[in-house]
Amino acid sequence: MSGNTIGRSFCVTTFGESHGPAIGAVVDGCPPGLELAESDIQADLEPRRTGTSQFTSQRQEPDEVRILSGVFEGRTTGTAIGLLVDNVDARGRDYEKIKDRFRPGHADYAYQQKYGLRDYRGGGRASARITVATVAAAAIARKWLRERLGLTVAGYLSQVGPYRLACVDSAAARSNPFHCADPEKVPLLESLIRDLRRDGDSVGARVTVTATRVPPGLGEPMFDRLDADIAFAMMGINAAKAVEIGDGVAVAGQRGTEHRDELTPQGFASNHGGGTLGGITSGQDLVVHVSFKPTSSIPTPGRTIDVSGQSAEVATTGRHDPCVGLRAVPIVEAMLLLVLMDHVLRHRAQCADVASATPDITR
Amino acid sequence: MSGNTIGRSFCVTTFGESHGPAIGAVVDGCPPGLELAESDIQADLEPRRTGTSQFTSQRQEPDEVRILSGVFEGRTTGTAIGLLVDNVDARGRDYEKIKDRFRPGHADYAYQQKYGLRDYRGGGRASARITVATVAAAAIARKWLRERLGLTVAGYLSQVGPYRLACVDSAAARSNPFHCADPEKVPLLESLIRDLRRDGDSVGARVTVTATRVPPGLGEPMFDRLDADIAFAMMGINAAKAVEIGDGVAVAGQRGTEHRDELTPQGFASNHGGGTLGGITSGQDLVVHVSFKPTSSIPTPGRTIDVSGQSAEVATTGRHDPCVGLRAVPIVEAMLLLVLMDHVLRHRAQCADVASATPDITR
Amino acid sequence: MSGNTIGRSFCVTTFGESHGPAIGAVVDGCPPGLELAESDIQADLEPRRTGTSQFTSQRQEPDEVRILSGVFEGRTTGTAIGLLVDNVDARGRDYEKIKDRFRPGHADYAYQQKYGLRDYRGGGRASARITVATVAAAAIARKWLRERLGLTVAGYLSQVGPYRLACVDSAAARSNPFHCADPEKVPLLESLIRDLRRDGDSVGARVTVTATRVPPGLGEPMFDRLDADIAFAMMGINAAKAVEIGDGVAVAGQRGTEHRDELTPQGFASNHGGGTLGGITSGQDLVVHVSFKPTSSIPTPGRTIDVSGQSAEVATTGRHDPCVGLRAVPIVEAMLLLVLMDHVLRHRAQCADVASATPDITR
Amino acid sequence: MSGNTIGRSFCVTTFGESHGPAIGAVVDGCPPGLELAESDIQADLEPRRTGTSQFTSQRQEPDEVRILSGVFEGRTTGTAIGLLVDNVDARGRDYEKIKDRFRPGHADYAYQQKYGLRDYRGGGRASARITVATVAAAAIARKWLRERLGLTVAGYLSQVGPYRLACVDSAAARSNPFHCADPEKVPLLESLIRDLRRDGDSVGARVTVTATRVPPGLGEPMFDRLDADIAFAMMGINAAKAVEIGDGVAVAGQRGTEHRDELTPQGFASNHGGGTLGGITSGQDLVVHVSFKPTSSIPTPGRTIDVSGQSAEVATTGRHDPCVGLRAVPIVEAMLLLVLMDHVLRHRAQCADVASATPDITR
Repeated sequence: MSGNTIGRSFCVTTFGESHGPAIGAVVDGCPPGLELAESDIQADLEPRRTGTSQFTSQRQEPDEVRILSGVFEGRTTGTAIGLLVDNVDARGRDYEKIKDRFRPGHADYAYQQKYGLRDYRGGGRASARITVATVAAAAIARKWLRERLGLTVAGYLSQVGPYRLACVDSAAARSNPFHCADPEKVPLLESLIRDLRRDGDSVGARVTVTATRVPPGLGEPMFDRLDADIAFAMMGINAAKAVEIGDGVAVAGQRGTEHRDELTPQGFASNHGGGTLGGITSGQDLVVHVSFKPTSSIPTPGRTIDVSGQSAEVATTGRHDPCVGLRAVPIVEAMLLLVLMDHVLRHRAQCADVASATPDITR
Repeated sequence: MSGNTIGRSFCVTTFGESHGPAIGAVVDGCPPGLELAESDIQADLEPRRTGTSQFTSQRQEPDEVRILSGVFEGRTTGTAIGLLVDNVDARGRDYEKIKDRFRPGHADYAYQQKYGLRDYRGGGRASARITVATVAAAAIARKWLRERLGLTVAGYLSQVGPYRLACVDSAAARSNPFHCADPEKVPLLESLIRDLRRDGDSVGARVTVTATRVPPGLGEPMFDRLDADIAFAMMGINAAKAVEIGDGVAVAGQRGTEHRDELTPQGFASNHGGGTLGGITSGQDLVVHVSFKPTSSIPTPGRTIDVSGQSAEVATTGRHDPCVGLRAVPIVEAMLLLVLMDHVLRHRAQCADVASATPDITR
Repeated sequence: MSGNTIGRSFCVTTFGESHGPAIGAVVDGCPPGLELAESDIQADLEPRRTGTSQFTSQRQEPDEVRILSGVFEGRTTGTAIGLLVDNVDARGRDYEKIKDRFRPGHADYAYQQKYGLRDYRGGGRASARITVATVAAAAIARKWLRERLGLTVAGYLSQVGPYRLACVDSAAARSNPFHCADPEKVPLLESLIRDLRRDGDSVGARVTVTATRVPPGLGEPMFDRLDADIAFAMMGINAAKAVEIGDGVAVAGQRGTEHRDELTPQGFASNHGGGTLGGITSGQDLVVHVSFKPTSSIPTPGRTIDVSGQSAEVATTGRHDPCVGLRAVPIVEAMLLLVLMDHVLRHRAQCADVASATPDITR
Repeated sequence: MSGNTIGRSFCVTTFGESHGPAIGAVVDGCPPGLELAESDIQADLEPRRTGTSQFTSQRQEPDEVRILSGVFEGRTTGTAIGLLVDNVDARGRDYEKIKDRFRPGHADYAYQQKYGLRDYRGGGRASARITVATVAAAAIARKWLRERLGLTVAGYLSQVGPYRLACVDSAAARSNPFHCADPEKVPLLESLIRDLRRDGDSVGARVTVTATRVPPGLGEPMFDRLDADIAFAMMGINAAKAVEIGDGVAVAGQRGTEHRDELTPQGFASNHGGGTLGGITSGQDLVVHVSFKPTSSIPTPGRTIDVSGQSAEVATTGRHDPCVGLRAVPIVEAMLLLVLMDHVLRHRAQCADVASATPDITR
């Protein structure tokens, strides 16, 4: 299996480039019988769409998804589901000037070294534009997990540059362009982004996502633990540089008496672990944090080299986000949904007939 | 493919439990012609062995590895390499008392929910004992990568509880039981561990690992990026709760002008990214950090439930490490070696005939 | 990995149904730098197209392929190649009458049992229509293998019902609608098909395919032998019921002195084995035979049951081939190309640096 | 995933060579809770053991299997099951004389070309000796499938050289060294083997295997059909050259009215298809045939080349079977068991909650 597929039982393969004709996904292994319409997917695409606020990229893409296969008379048939989203506002010519030089912090140089050539238009395959396919595929997982298990996944922006942002009201994260769950902080973020635009700079961010009503038992030792697959999926998002489960990096400073989540007949006494034990879900909420580096495409000129190895300078003036993290919430949610869906199916492959005599203290 | 295999081209499958008769690995896809003896592997097993210092577990295991296949007349043949390490100092009866109750922070409860039963002896498959197989397999990768590419991987303990530890002298990390690269701090660590033993407590830690002379171009978009596979491998280590590449969680607070690594004809001007661009190696050093939670097995009693769901108390009195992170360095190195080896082979599958015209500024 | 993907290093994922809007393929892992245009693929689609002769299905499909990604400025970039072919002449309503009953010999009953529902229009995902995606993907493999290795794959019809057909002139197989390499037998086949149409019946067939200039060393013990992967690919073609390598079923009646292919400095003295030894290519021509059952869709009524389990009768009057084998040659070629391409890449992953001291007697 | 693993959900990885210290298998993904003892596996190893009759190889191997992991207190735990069988009667020195030359019909030349070196002792990894690991792993599948589904798999020798052998009494196949289900023909086979020994020759064979009480719905379109995976598994057996499902190669000569298996409320009216429709099980018996070439190792001298490419002669005088097909029945059964087990688990991953309203006419 090559690099454009994620999942073993619920497998998503994507294709497409930032400035090609279309972006698509094939969802393989979806359980049959799920009611599914294009509008179900469309609803999940909206939150990651660009051009909808002054604080993100101005690229205007309707992101209309078409279901090309795998659905018949309104229900999934169990065969491969083909999804297609046309690129409408591609402007390949904007990128002529970076054709011969590598943008610092971008994949340009690495792709050129790997493949000997590259599609330089908007980052080609390395563009965040591509995540539209992932989010579309994950919308199917979201619907199935919610309808069959009551499982939900919701994220919010937990840090931007110097500001730590609490989850005051999780619903609020869906009503502002920052996915900020602390509504009072929105004006602060607005002025931060305006300052960055003025300075020709960008900023990093951190996103937190939580899954609730996760069945216990998901994940497979030795390597394919649920937290390992989450780390894989999250670190694979553009600009991600750190993945944390539960207390994350803070655990290095904790003591055992502080960290361990004690069990009681009424449930776990705490959730420092973030929902996994030995890499397998405990039935507690899954809590995951992903840190994103600042957008590499900024107007402030930087040093680089050209394709012949000579010194050059580059400044990006296209339609970019001053903070990629702002738009990352739907993508982080999508990745978690894909991993959970895959492991729910994997789990029942091996353990469909297991009946644990031990009470599930999380229900 | 099920959960006990890691890698696509260089595939390692492991088996074994903490208190079973033996632990093993099958290494599939190793290039033929590599000179390999058991002593080559043995050398890598030594640093993770228990019972060698008063600061780690007192379990006495010689960890003698046998090569059962795949090597003929001193060289790898290209067929599957079977590795076996006998368990010598297993004491399953020590665990009778936890047979009916779940240790907080351990996989006990999650395994029971998943499988309906569990091997309760020393954590069974969830024990850190199992990593002996991973380290043995990675020793083969280490030898090949060093001999063919000059690539080396070295780690050190970068934090224990409250203490941040710098890499003052990387060689020193191999000469003390803490894998501490700041020799002056060793007495501090000794007293920390003694205090923990006295308090019946444990502490978390963070390990940093660096790979040098990494070829540019490793990793595959869209999902199987090198950093994603590293995150997968690292988060799959027992007790890992966070994986960071380069500046890691700090990137959320950085600005674009600060983070981006500019390119010059003499090389990259900095390495905030940690060696990947768009998930593909740039040829810079790979820098990875893994944070480990404090050992869950501690003598201080904690609340839990028993297998019938009733309240219970548990205290661990076996042979455990007060800080699992102390012994994690060889395991973190092993995981990075496995991922790199796999991607070197994957890269040449697709790109063996690529000749980039662009100079490699990292060489 | 789920069922709609073939290959490990050169991975092809397909989607689409007989009467859905479009059929597509994602080709993942293609080496970069291959010159590729839509016309290259179109040329390979032509021989399997329906509606081009009175002897095959009258469904009129232009089979125009679009490349949606993975190609930039006329060359493959190494990223996923999306291919799309619209269905133009779909007539879903033709199938209303079989909505509630299962056609004998078709996948209808098995799909219904597996998924609990099915797309009954023209067999849905089980239709031979779908192979357009496979053939499109294989055209890319064909071009790469020919340009880089000089490897070619060519098939012909070797049996139809009672007639065994020799390979008198392999080029002739590309100039008649039967893919018959014995031009003198074409009139015989024409009258056979006319008789079948008159009788409301169909007939089985056997296809033979040969690959020349195959490098020695392709295939991986223990399980992923080249012949095993060929058998997998071929038996997965619609209506295939037998796969033979070299002398195939005849070997059961042979003696060792007769079968073994002796080696001489000038090459192998014979090719009973069909090009593999221990499942690995020897450098000899690969010779594969695939037997196809007669078309199940025939006008002669047959007994069946309906979806409630009651007795029913069914007769197929749609646009079907009286002999599916007639159109199977391009599909058999495509499958062999995909397997070879995948194994060429897999082989160089593991063995790119092997230099055998033994002369290759097949060159 | 590399070549020594078979299966996606029930994964078996094997290692070992004919004359190495041991042969092993790792079974990953086995459902937990299955009662399993070494004696369960031992019973399945007996029928493929050598040295038990004068008609097969005289190599004396007790084939004692040890379970190294994955079983606790007599039941599978759901973690990886390690199996090990020591080689006792290895005689590597017997092979010194073929060290420098390639045996016709053997993998020697192909391995040398692939890997640049080879373990020449008894064929190394290419030896049929290795199948002991596959049969051991399949014994676990056999037990689970029988206990949970009532599914059984049984094979017999259906042809040896000129003799076609009917299944007169399937139980008889387990009571003679030929796996012949037509007891009256046993004397004929005895004299055939004696004649072959006298002539220094060998002969081919065909094995037929049937699975009963197979659930409908196993197998996945598009590529991973059940018959495709069966073909893969069977063609991967040493010396296999043809795989047929149901009527097999005979279908090329059949008419549609003859071949199609009509459905009635009481079941299918016939079973020409061999148990699959569209590659998915119909619930009918699965019927598979595998043809094996004559043993390549024969005392009659043959032409070959040596490692420097010069003409040479070779005659095999070791402990070989005059007909590998005689011992293939347990291996063919094992392969079918592995494929079925894998697909039962895969099917419930995707379709565990499907309830077909259509009656299953095969029950």
